Amino acid sequence: MLDESRLCIHQVTLLRRWGMSEFLAGMRRHGVPAVAIWRDRLREAGVADTRRMIDAEDLVVTSLCAAGLVTTPDRVAAALALDDVIRALDEAAAIGAGNLMFVAGGVDPGERSVYAARERTLDRLAVIGEHARKVGVRVALEPLHPMVCATRSVLSTLALANDWCDRLGDEETFGIAVDTYAVWWDPALAAEIARAGRRIIAFHVNDWLADTRDLRLDRGMLGDGLIDIPAIRRMVEATGYAGYVEVEIFSERDWWRRDPDEVIAIIKDRFRRDV
Amino acid sequence: MLDESRLCIHQVTLLRRWGMSEFLAGMRRHGVPAVAIWRDRLREAGVADTRRMIDAEDLVVTSLCAAGLVTTPDRVAAALALDDVIRALDEAAAIGAGNLMFVAGGVDPGERSVYAARERTLDRLAVIGEHARKVGVRVALEPLHPMVCATRSVLSTLALANDWCDRLGDEETFGIAVDTYAVWWDPALAAEIARAGRRIIAFHVNDWLADTRDLRLDRGMLGDGLIDIPAIRRMVEATGYAGYVEVEIFSERDWWRRDPDEVIAIIKDRFRRDV
Repeated sequence: MLDESRLCIHQVTLLRRWGMSEFLAGMRRHGVPAVAIWRDRLREAGVADTRRMIDAEDLVVTSLCAAGLVTTPDRVAAALALDDVIRALDEAAAIGAGNLMFVAGGVDPGERSVYAARERTLDRLAVIGEHARKVGVRVALEPLHPMVCATRSVLSTLALANDWCDRLGDEETFGIAVDTYAVWWDPALAAEIARAGRRIIAFHVNDWLADTRDLRLDRGMLGDGLIDIPAIRRMVEATGYAGYVEVEIFSERDWWRRDPDEVIAIIKDRFRRDV
Repeated sequence: MLDESRLCIHQVTLLRRWGMSEFLAGMRRHGVPAVAIWRDRLREAGVADTRRMIDAEDLVVTSLCAAGLVTTPDRVAAALALDDVIRALDEAAAIGAGNLMFVAGGVDPGERSVYAARERTLDRLAVIGEHARKVGVRVALEPLHPMVCATRSVLSTLALANDWCDRLGDEETFGIAVDTYAVWWDPALAAEIARAGRRIIAFHVNDWLADTRDLRLDRGMLGDGLIDIPAIRRMVEATGYAGYVEVEIFSERDWWRRDPDEVIAIIKDRFRRDV
């Protein structure tokens, strides 16, 4: 049984009903020790005020979510995208988040080359890494599900995240985020988690619904789907990972519509039973 | 430029408007040399009548689509599923199809183990292989996109198809179908196509739309999406593959709603330009 002291809830899970102050106060009220902060809410609330609230509620911030989308072949667009990632690193440092979740970006419709998009991303990560080192924030490379390869992330497998870490050659700055939703189907999962080893700096949990209706916003609550989450947790922990287990659920049809206090109570129950 | 003598159209692409006889006559009328037959239409039309029409129109049948769905942990359900695959092999032989497209099946909701589903599938393929040898039909292992892993196929990558071929150890009976839609995102694509080599016995083409809305029935016409189809074709042909290039488009929102003659004309145009 998983100890609740390892529970982290991503702000996105409760995004539709709560602003920043309600979210942070709610986490404290329910005894959730750690959170991941989402940038759109951070922008609304302001970095300095958010930091004050986080400290007042005595919460740990695992990460800031998310920045990236740097795959474009257009130089001007790429410069703007890189600026935004640099800003996100500064924001992460300012709110005391150890990691910035990095989402690569998709395939350019004019270029139609997932290969070119991947090579450019790797080049740009080298630039991002320089600033990350300066501000003391780690960049968490997060593979996303192949079904969002075209639009959200050309980083589609753990194998590729490991390859990129090999090539970037800076294990202090770059790590990997394992998200059950993104990787559960992968035949190479056990091998690539073992290969990642100490690179794993974040572990996200959620479930895959049998009747999934949307490519992005239809994730399931822990235990409601087809993923053997405990098996993946054991693989991740076998690498030595003992950090937070982060609940991150995008759910247009269900969880975003519910009362956040109810959602948190259910997460806590499922966290003990299904993770 | 791809020679039209290598064009094959899957019946499913024109499924909504045409029955078997209209489909086969339409292919002949448009000078399409090869087809893949779909089982539901075959069941309606009958095997003997279909064979007569295929011969009368002088068409090549690359494959019968599809059979499988053998992942269940339930013994009775598994026996029924195996019977159905055996029947499909007989049907394929009867209509002169060289290959049967094999779709593994999904994850059992009670069991929640993609690993167990994969192991059972491999065991059952050994049984299927015995009958395939008898009737002279090859079993084409077709990896499907990871987004249908839960519901349609736990065979999610070319790497796993290659692993299964290694373990089955019968290259005459088992081959691999490469479908651009299923594999384009895979960072290991080039390596696993090269590894597959002569195992590749079918090559399916279609495109991934940037605004994909459905996990199964929203495939795009050649050239309308983000896949570099010519690049994948070159990888496949570098293995020595010189067979048909098969157009297979499931499209609830668009192509299934159009006049089949119009769809075929557009396919022929795009086949020259975008494949």
